[in-house]
Amino acid sequence: MKKIEIFDTTLRDGSQMIGVNFSLEDKIKIAKKMDDVGIDFLECGWPSSNPKDYQFFKEIKNHKLKHSKIVAFGSTAYYKNKIEDDKNLNTIIEIEPDVANIFGKSWDLHVTDIFGITLEKNLEIVYESVKYLKEKIKEVFFTAEHFFDGYKKNKGYALSVLKEAEKAGATRIILADTNGGQHYLEIRDIIKDVKENISTEIGVHFHNDSGMATINSIESILAGAMQIHGTINGYGERCGNANLCEIIPILQLKMNYDILGDNITKLTQLSKYVSELSNFAHEIRMPFVGTNAFAHKGGVHVSAIMKNSQSYEHMSPENVGNKRVVSISDLSGKSNIKYKLKEFDLDIILDDNEITKVIKAVKSKVNKGYEYEGAEASFELLVQRELNKKVDFINVKSFRIISEENYELREVSEGTVKLEIEGNEYYTVAEGNGPVDALTKALKKALLHEYPELEKVTLSDYKVRILNSEATQSLVRVLVESKNSETGEEWSTVGVSTNIIKASWEALVDMFNYYLYNKYEKHKK
Amino acid sequence: MKKIEIFDTTLRDGSQMIGVNFSLEDKIKIAKKMDDVGIDFLECGWPSSNPKDYQFFKEIKNHKLKHSKIVAFGSTAYYKNKIEDDKNLNTIIEIEPDVANIFGKSWDLHVTDIFGITLEKNLEIVYESVKYLKEKIKEVFFTAEHFFDGYKKNKGYALSVLKEAEKAGATRIILADTNGGQHYLEIRDIIKDVKENISTEIGVHFHNDSGMATINSIESILAGAMQIHGTINGYGERCGNANLCEIIPILQLKMNYDILGDNITKLTQLSKYVSELSNFAHEIRMPFVGTNAFAHKGGVHVSAIMKNSQSYEHMSPENVGNKRVVSISDLSGKSNIKYKLKEFDLDIILDDNEITKVIKAVKSKVNKGYEYEGAEASFELLVQRELNKKVDFINVKSFRIISEENYELREVSEGTVKLEIEGNEYYTVAEGNGPVDALTKALKKALLHEYPELEKVTLSDYKVRILNSEATQSLVRVLVESKNSETGEEWSTVGVSTNIIKASWEALVDMFNYYLYNKYEKHKK
Repeated sequence: MKKIEIFDTTLRDGSQMIGVNFSLEDKIKIAKKMDDVGIDFLECGWPSSNPKDYQFFKEIKNHKLKHSKIVAFGSTAYYKNKIEDDKNLNTIIEIEPDVANIFGKSWDLHVTDIFGITLEKNLEIVYESVKYLKEKIKEVFFTAEHFFDGYKKNKGYALSVLKEAEKAGATRIILADTNGGQHYLEIRDIIKDVKENISTEIGVHFHNDSGMATINSIESILAGAMQIHGTINGYGERCGNANLCEIIPILQLKMNYDILGDNITKLTQLSKYVSELSNFAHEIRMPFVGTNAFAHKGGVHVSAIMKNSQSYEHMSPENVGNKRVVSISDLSGKSNIKYKLKEFDLDIILDDNEITKVIKAVKSKVNKGYEYEGAEASFELLVQRELNKKVDFINVKSFRIISEENYELREVSEGTVKLEIEGNEYYTVAEGNGPVDALTKALKKALLHEYPELEKVTLSDYKVRILNSEATQSLVRVLVESKNSETGEEWSTVGVSTNIIKASWEALVDMFNYYLYNKYEKHKK
Repeated sequence: MKKIEIFDTTLRDGSQMIGVNFSLEDKIKIAKKMDDVGIDFLECGWPSSNPKDYQFFKEIKNHKLKHSKIVAFGSTAYYKNKIEDDKNLNTIIEIEPDVANIFGKSWDLHVTDIFGITLEKNLEIVYESVKYLKEKIKEVFFTAEHFFDGYKKNKGYALSVLKEAEKAGATRIILADTNGGQHYLEIRDIIKDVKENISTEIGVHFHNDSGMATINSIESILAGAMQIHGTINGYGERCGNANLCEIIPILQLKMNYDILGDNITKLTQLSKYVSELSNFAHEIRMPFVGTNAFAHKGGVHVSAIMKNSQSYEHMSPENVGNKRVVSISDLSGKSNIKYKLKEFDLDIILDDNEITKVIKAVKSKVNKGYEYEGAEASFELLVQRELNKKVDFINVKSFRIISEENYELREVSEGTVKLEIEGNEYYTVAEGNGPVDALTKALKKALLHEYPELEKVTLSDYKVRILNSEATQSLVRVLVESKNSETGEEWSTVGVSTNIIKASWEALVDMFNYYLYNKYEKHKK
């Protein structure tokens, strides 16, 4: 079977998504992760248009990539310029990418109405631009912008644009559905016709405005294209680009194409990494790589899964590096609880009475807005509390936050905490960068007297979610990720309240309780 | 062309999505909205399994629907029961739905391994269950669970299950891809084979685990099915159900089927309504109905759109009741600003100098994390400040929040505010339900002295988003929606800081400033 090339444009087209703002370091990190997964082409920016992109192409040369080729994006020459004076093309040549990918007009309307030049002039520009780059860069791709619209409005012209690029030596010709309106039923005939007119290998670049980017990409492969453009998580403008995290598993795991080989098990991790660096929550419902793609809620499903996973799963999550999730929710039955205990390595067998107590405690919390996904330490404390283990090391007498801004002086957040531990009272105060930071410092200050080892416990992540939005009486859920800076061990806790300070406080107290419970109580016989 | 039926299961299958928890009122409201849009069937719950669902079926009878038929979900009889004693079937009969939809096993593995009964016994149960319901309910649908897996593993048995349902009088036979693993390339042959074995009209029920729910639904219609099951926004377990907000526009606007007639222009509003009541953010990148489905960021695109919208849009957003969005972001050029001013009804012409000033001010804020989507009032204040209009009515001297929990007394949030307005100093304090509520009350108390009309200004929504998560130093963005309780007028403002109190404070001050600017300054010549 012909080799299918994956062309990722997360760092170029994907970065045009509203809210995305990659730093230079972000881009380097993502490029290296993509290389590790074995993505063939990485389109990393438009160097003549964006100074940050220009810097990237210089910087990436200091990093040895084992597989991926670096692609510089740009446009055909500006019609008023002499080709050799075109800044856009010259910048591409200057930064010496592995591959250049330039886009040009293939829809007559865009040539005459948007550019305001003749159809012949555009053909000349396409030819000259590709030829000019080909003298200096070995691999030059030509992307026919708005190709499918252009083909359907004026087939002859669209095909002649492709032929010019081919004549000039383009090594790949990419057909782009720039507006995202292309219907999948037309793909095969169009690709077949293109293949009858040019012999250069074809790539396709779809957008998901009509919900058909994935299917259009697959239909194109079936019709003879061999390169798919897309982004991780389908990031991109409007409805996004074709989602490689969907397309690659379909092709490799359901249609037997070899795309990434064994590296496909790194796909979920790549997906999460990119969303992290993009500052977006990882979409939980994404096929294959979503956090909930293999999540089971109902008790009936869960007990069935534990008998025979094929019965309710279309494939093994491990194939893409994902995992099965059994949710704790108000549909929890005994199977859910047992599964969760096993998953959290809680090596405890509960009898039926104990399970009933735990389920009752869980449902009661869940109805108040608690969610234990991503807060396993809080869940463990909840279970152990029902089993009468010692989990509450910290007896809080009171806490107070003062957050003020005085325009003559400065902004101040002060946290005050009064605790009782082992009969001793501790009363501390600390300042911080915002109310939660102040509380964390005050709490730690108090605890250090009794447990100096808590110096190593640090807060590594803090997430707030509003559970419903009834004005300022919204229920707030705070998730705290903590880390033992010495051992690297991590754990997560949760707090829920209408008061964000209170919710944060809960998660912080659980954070320290968990460390202490883990150290002093957990392994007691 | 044959009529295609839309069967919505948002209130049953969709509600199984993690995080969804519809109240009875929510379900009634959603059902009425769906009826108004003209959805043919509304599957509203599993009455014998869920007491809340049972209540719904009783309550919905008090509401006259003009189009939609109400469907009760359930399973075939439990094998140990006599049919007439089966609580599940009897509950369905008792609540007198317009339609009953019962699911039964059609995959031999599930019958023998999960249920532990013989293949013949299962056929009997399917036949008897459908027949029993048909005596009392005019329309009985039978859903063949795991049909596609069952068909591919044991075609004869799967088809025989369908035949039993048909013999018993089922009015629709639904083929369900319960695991979501079905590939679109196999659909036409399977549906055609089914149509050669039964004459009952066929419906299809797909899940999106492999990213192919939409395409599978469309392929099924092309092969002769006439009913599509799905949910609004594709809500549902794991990767969700088939997304009706994608399928309906594809069929009606790109393939000329008449599904909703003119009511298709209500689709975006329905989509947003359901996400609101589900407590989920409306997915911005959803095809057709997403907030950003027609959003344009880059300056080049924006100026092209303003010339000829077809040049960059695959269809008119109004067709589904959506709208074009031009984003303010750091790619903003003059076109973006001009478009935004027009969109916000800011009837002001800016000269080039003024536009440059505004762009500079906007970019500076945007780089600090400000986003003006959904915060148009803050944007207007920003523009007018650059044009030297009076927008800062409130001169804040200081503010303070004290949030404390004293275990002997109670939880207290106290806000203190010192302001100067028109040379007068106001120093107020108020308690609230959480720090933000306390600050809002204290601020309002101070302002009322000078502007008694501010009594009508209320906070109607409050959203927090963490812009990056660097522990407790995360940048927090607060969006506040305000309302004039007398006129109903609404406006939104934004605040950004590492300190959530400070961010909230900013949005609140802008909230009042905007009201005052609007009343006293905006229309001055």
